[in-house]
Amino acid sequence: MAFRYSRRVQFAETDMAGIVHFAQFFRYMEEAEHALWRAAGLSIAKAHENIGWPRVSARFDFKAPLHFEDEFDVHVTMGKITRSTITWECRLTRGETLIGEGSSTTVHVGRKPGEPLKSAEIPAQVLAALRAVVDG
Amino acid sequence: MAFRYSRRVQFAETDMAGIVHFAQFFRYMEEAEHALWRAAGLSIAKAHENIGWPRVSARFDFKAPLHFEDEFDVHVTMGKITRSTITWECRLTRGETLIGEGSSTTVHVGRKPGEPLKSAEIPAQVLAALRAVVDG
Amino acid sequence: MAFRYSRRVQFAETDMAGIVHFAQFFRYMEEAEHALWRAAGLSIAKAHENIGWPRVSARFDFKAPLHFEDEFDVHVTMGKITRSTITWECRLTRGETLIGEGSSTTVHVGRKPGEPLKSAEIPAQVLAALRAVVDG
Amino acid sequence: MAFRYSRRVQFAETDMAGIVHFAQFFRYMEEAEHALWRAAGLSIAKAHENIGWPRVSARFDFKAPLHFEDEFDVHVTMGKITRSTITWECRLTRGETLIGEGSSTTVHVGRKPGEPLKSAEIPAQVLAALRAVVDG
Repeated sequence: MAFRYSRRVQFAETDMAGIVHFAQFFRYMEEAEHALWRAAGLSIAKAHENIGWPRVSARFDFKAPLHFEDEFDVHVTMGKITRSTITWECRLTRGETLIGEGSSTTVHVGRKPGEPLKSAEIPAQVLAALRAVVDG
Repeated sequence: MAFRYSRRVQFAETDMAGIVHFAQFFRYMEEAEHALWRAAGLSIAKAHENIGWPRVSARFDFKAPLHFEDEFDVHVTMGKITRSTITWECRLTRGETLIGEGSSTTVHVGRKPGEPLKSAEIPAQVLAALRAVVDG
Repeated sequence: MAFRYSRRVQFAETDMAGIVHFAQFFRYMEEAEHALWRAAGLSIAKAHENIGWPRVSARFDFKAPLHFEDEFDVHVTMGKITRSTITWECRLTRGETLIGEGSSTTVHVGRKPGEPLKSAEIPAQVLAALRAVVDG
Repeated sequence: MAFRYSRRVQFAETDMAGIVHFAQFFRYMEEAEHALWRAAGLSIAKAHENIGWPRVSARFDFKAPLHFEDEFDVHVTMGKITRSTITWECRLTRGETLIGEGSSTTVHVGRKPGEPLKSAEIPAQVLAALRAVVDG
């Protein structure tokens, strides 16, 4: 069970080695995550009004390169969930080929006027809506 | 007389053709413009607090490619000035080689609470400070 | 008559002013152009094997901002055609709103072993295939 | 002992949350690594002629945000070294503030005509030159 986001490699995403630049994969993971929010009837944009969901960490393991015009999929599942964080797990594939695997952890934060940012409990209905999309 | 901004090409700025991607040149022009603001003791960042200086137009003519690790200069001068707009003219060179020429026009806007954005006269002291940098 | 390319604004394409960064619009125009090549049964990628189609110039006039998650269209038509260059004309719209208009000129170049790059006549069948897509 | 690379945040590197976009940190790490190669009298560009040094993995832990015009340092050290891989460890700081920590692993590969890519032993003199820079 995973949410699937499909995408094509654009020219500006390649580098002089003729393949997609490694930092671009973190954008692909983020695009897939945001598409998942939209599929849940939510928008990370709205969440951003109150500061939102900064990244705590991100990682990616590269298995095979992507080239210009390749069509690929990002398969997103939920990893570890805590009171205020979600870890998204992503697998990138091009047909049967595994391109790589990564994850990123975001923390739900809020801000009250005159106070510093701090992590805040993820609302139960947000979590339920996201989970429903991932579980298909 | 021109303000000079020096830069080196980074790997992620190249594309599969082995040269700097054409859209990147607009970022180079912007970096040079912002360095000029700083040299004037101003910051475009502060300006952005009140919405700031959106782009009206931008153009670039490409004469020769830039490659990874090339060191180049952006020479910035002021073109047409109106009540609320500045046009920045840029020449990119690598040593004696002309890489390209471009320009971009930005408009000074303000926003009062509850009112739509609108163009606003550029303060005379801002213009004077910018001009002083360009004129060396 | 125009070729239409549809796209959604991604988070990483925005800047601290809360809108799509101006240099990103040149990437949108390029994506649309490459989609047009694919619709013509061609690939700019293949063209790149023999160096391809470097940019001669690019310009964009900004009329209204794009925000995160906005869905927009790039409408591409052919402007001036010469022996070795094509000028692509682009209009960006979000629903009924004009976001901006731009163009970019690319030159067809070839390289023979041991010789410098030089502009080369655009093959008639390439031009015909591209035109057929634009003319719908 | 670490190699230090200094940088200023550019406008296009920020996103609508008003801070540097998380994927950009991977570019900062790469820029620092390439500066280190240059300090060693080497160029990753030359290495790329024979395919070079693709990424095996990359990760970053975010501790504090960076804002437009912030000046920051990337401190690079060598982590685990194997026959064909180097892991670069990076700390980003702005003054006394820790911005984040990350690492990336690259593998040295070679290609003989008509054969697939494969990992290749890192030449001892390359390793010695890189180490000399890191050890100051």
